[in-house]
Amino acid sequence: MGRTGRRPGGVDTRGSILSAARSEFGNKGYHQATIRSIAAEAGVDPALVHHYFGTKEDLFATSIDLPLRPTELADTVFADGVESAGMRITTVFFTVWENQETRSPLLAMLRGAFGTEQGAEILREFFGTAMLGRVAPRIGGDDAELRVSLALSHLIGVAVLRYVIGFPSLRDVPVDQLIAAIAPRVQSYLDS
Amino acid sequence: MGRTGRRPGGVDTRGSILSAARSEFGNKGYHQATIRSIAAEAGVDPALVHHYFGTKEDLFATSIDLPLRPTELADTVFADGVESAGMRITTVFFTVWENQETRSPLLAMLRGAFGTEQGAEILREFFGTAMLGRVAPRIGGDDAELRVSLALSHLIGVAVLRYVIGFPSLRDVPVDQLIAAIAPRVQSYLDS
Repeated sequence: MGRTGRRPGGVDTRGSILSAARSEFGNKGYHQATIRSIAAEAGVDPALVHHYFGTKEDLFATSIDLPLRPTELADTVFADGVESAGMRITTVFFTVWENQETRSPLLAMLRGAFGTEQGAEILREFFGTAMLGRVAPRIGGDDAELRVSLALSHLIGVAVLRYVIGFPSLRDVPVDQLIAAIAPRVQSYLDS
Repeated sequence: MGRTGRRPGGVDTRGSILSAARSEFGNKGYHQATIRSIAAEAGVDPALVHHYFGTKEDLFATSIDLPLRPTELADTVFADGVESAGMRITTVFFTVWENQETRSPLLAMLRGAFGTEQGAEILREFFGTAMLGRVAPRIGGDDAELRVSLALSHLIGVAVLRYVIGFPSLRDVPVDQLIAAIAPRVQSYLDS
């Protein structure tokens, strides 16, 4: 994603919005910061924020350099139907974590969630809205949210042990082997 | 576990060893601290340390107020054979986490692992030796360590989301429902 949005007159609208977003999310927390308040902070129309960055979740993801657009994630994961979503979500998850550059913001988010209540709130709200809110309805069932959360918890647990703690048996195994082992368990949560 | 070990002359041997252990684990890390160095610090014979506290893992567990003796854990988990170990390990795990008093040291250990390399090392060494070293051989297979680690990662991931982050769908569900959902996945890792 290049640095577009530089206008005549030298005003980098996209950059201003991004700075405002980082400031608002940082000061008010994920929940309290709004597209409206970010637009006001940047001195632009809210429509322009949507135009450049999509939804609030997408803007947040961009503001912390996450390589995924939450609103597109569910489409990617369910592209071949529910029956292969376990493999797809597990593959996407580890592809992002394996790449040193895309791992950093995730690691920072995870550490932030452990360190401060505001960090925990970001993870709750962001994943709650961005992931559960979009993924759960696709699999259906009364306990869909619980099952998606359990699948996510497994992925996060592996990330914690592999990338944060460096648990030898999980750190040293090739990622393909890891994905092959985990995907069926993730799938089993999506199935029932 | 009462405060035994008070000897004539007012020397609380058990207490001295425990203080020495906390100091040694704190200063040298889990791996570098030894029963021998802890005994020296406490001014007692190493045999006395074993007598009061068992192995180094057991001593460490006691020193951070963990309510489990790692050396007894595997026997508890496999008491009814491998086929019910998934339910037993999941139940033990959540029983300890659900209790506010026994949760605190676990939470501290997890936060420490996120905050410092020494904290991460404790989790690696302690769980690596205490859990994997004892549980993996009971289930057998070339990839036994990997499978036990994956089962553990799922449990830890749920603990992170339920107790640290407070993810609503996992925080608000009764623990029995959680155990019923997770145990079969843990069991599936132990089975193959």
